[in-house]
Amino acid sequence: MTRTIVESKTKTAIIGFDQPFCVIGERINPTGRKLLAAQLEAGDFSTVEKDALEQVAAGATMLDVNAGVVYNSNPNPNETEPPLMRQMIELVQGLVDVPLCIDSSVPGALEAGLEVCHGRPLLNSVTGEEERLDLVLPLVKKYNVPVVAISNDDTGISEDPDVRFAVAKKIVERAADFGIPAHDIVVDPLVMPIGAMATAGQQVFALVRRLRGELGVNTTCGASNISFGLPNRHGINAAFLPMAIAAGMTSAIMNPVRPQEMEAVRAANLLMNNDAHGAEWIRSNKAPQAEGEAPAGARGARGGRRRRRSA
Amino acid sequence: MTRTIVESKTKTAIIGFDQPFCVIGERINPTGRKLLAAQLEAGDFSTVEKDALEQVAAGATMLDVNAGVVYNSNPNPNETEPPLMRQMIELVQGLVDVPLCIDSSVPGALEAGLEVCHGRPLLNSVTGEEERLDLVLPLVKKYNVPVVAISNDDTGISEDPDVRFAVAKKIVERAADFGIPAHDIVVDPLVMPIGAMATAGQQVFALVRRLRGELGVNTTCGASNISFGLPNRHGINAAFLPMAIAAGMTSAIMNPVRPQEMEAVRAANLLMNNDAHGAEWIRSNKAPQAEGEAPAGARGARGGRRRRRSA
Repeated sequence: MTRTIVESKTKTAIIGFDQPFCVIGERINPTGRKLLAAQLEAGDFSTVEKDALEQVAAGATMLDVNAGVVYNSNPNPNETEPPLMRQMIELVQGLVDVPLCIDSSVPGALEAGLEVCHGRPLLNSVTGEEERLDLVLPLVKKYNVPVVAISNDDTGISEDPDVRFAVAKKIVERAADFGIPAHDIVVDPLVMPIGAMATAGQQVFALVRRLRGELGVNTTCGASNISFGLPNRHGINAAFLPMAIAAGMTSAIMNPVRPQEMEAVRAANLLMNNDAHGAEWIRSNKAPQAEGEAPAGARGARGGRRRRRSA
Repeated sequence: MTRTIVESKTKTAIIGFDQPFCVIGERINPTGRKLLAAQLEAGDFSTVEKDALEQVAAGATMLDVNAGVVYNSNPNPNETEPPLMRQMIELVQGLVDVPLCIDSSVPGALEAGLEVCHGRPLLNSVTGEEERLDLVLPLVKKYNVPVVAISNDDTGISEDPDVRFAVAKKIVERAADFGIPAHDIVVDPLVMPIGAMATAGQQVFALVRRLRGELGVNTTCGASNISFGLPNRHGINAAFLPMAIAAGMTSAIMNPVRPQEMEAVRAANLLMNNDAHGAEWIRSNKAPQAEGEAPAGARGARGGRRRRRSA
């Protein structure tokens, strides 16, 4: 039974076929968030703090930390991202106790994160590109950490799922050459927007089944990509996640502060027999006012959904 | 490609692997509805009329009609159910144009429904019980209609999915002896409550895959059984349906007036590439006030969900 072990100083998260779905909080990422990017350049980490606390309160198993901001004062991320990643990792692991996912396309930032991160973080990511394989796999080996493997290569992202499977297989084999076991590779089969490619859902479900059955690896994805460009994205995401989980998907990088998606994940855990005695389902469906520990962040987002629906 | 054709006088519904999920409205059923039962005995059909119109407005593909009321004045359903079924079928097909599903455990009521029903209704149901096979399959043959086959037999409902598969196989084979093709059998693999049997979800998903792969039949289920006894049943149902659809389930007997479940079904249709160009998803996610034809029933239930969540 494939298990990927990810650890903070005090907590262990297991990604696995027989485990509750691993929700990797995606919020700490300045990509496409202009305000956050400006704050980070100015040394203001208040949004990072808020995002860390809210995502854990909403039930994230793990937090992704991405420092991919391009400074106006210095456009070279190879210089700016490593120290920023170091700062952000130190800040976040001082605030919350869940394991972290170090997310960068700058190898120096990955290593900077690895140097300061306690426990056994998940590294995000390697691809099938030769240069990335050569730069990232030695880090994975040196720090003995698991890694997200994205199934694109030097030819780009193939629309053919067989090619994406072949790229994943190549990464697993190349990792094996470094002595990295398959259970430390978490493959992202790449989720295309269903609005642009009508077979995108079926592709992912079939790929996840193959990755699990033939390569024995855990899987992840950027879940909300599936609904890009369509109305009521949360409604699509909330059906996609249970379907992917039924196909064998074991984690996703997603927004845990969205109650509709989190409810779908919790229901899917119950339906896959990964919620013993339905304890988590029952706990999370108590009336909020009777639940002293109800997360403020989750409540806020829930209120937001009500308002939009009544609009 | 398996296709089960069900027809009213003017409309055809196709249950099939490459079709949008077939939603069979379950509301016209006095079982467990004391008020409706009393109304029917008193000859008051106002609730039946309301249920028929609301379910079609909410998007039901087909309506189930069950006349299973035990009269206080005459406790013999063999005498009371056939004329009531006849009346109800005539009433409903006069009000709405979707195909109907004639639902009874009384063979005389099934035949009474078949006599008056226009088009090609779905008969609900036969089981693997010898007496039921002998009584119902001749009706299926005589009227040339498709039939729901429930996978229990004279030994009851097995908790072993292999036994339930074997019962379904027996029914398909017995039907073949009558010249009834597999594409006219819609198997209900029986959904157990997940609260009572932790493997209930996985059992159904595996059974549906086998029924489709090995017997080539369409499938249905009483979807809400899965959540019996647990809090937030709609949340569980709304994850179960996409998971079952991803496994190959092609129809369900369910309450179409529940917006959460219907949204999940529509999203699953989109994700299974059974919603060309996302047209139905986009149409159903227009703002309600801009949508002249928005069903009053669906809006009311949506309001109900808001109120409960804010409680």
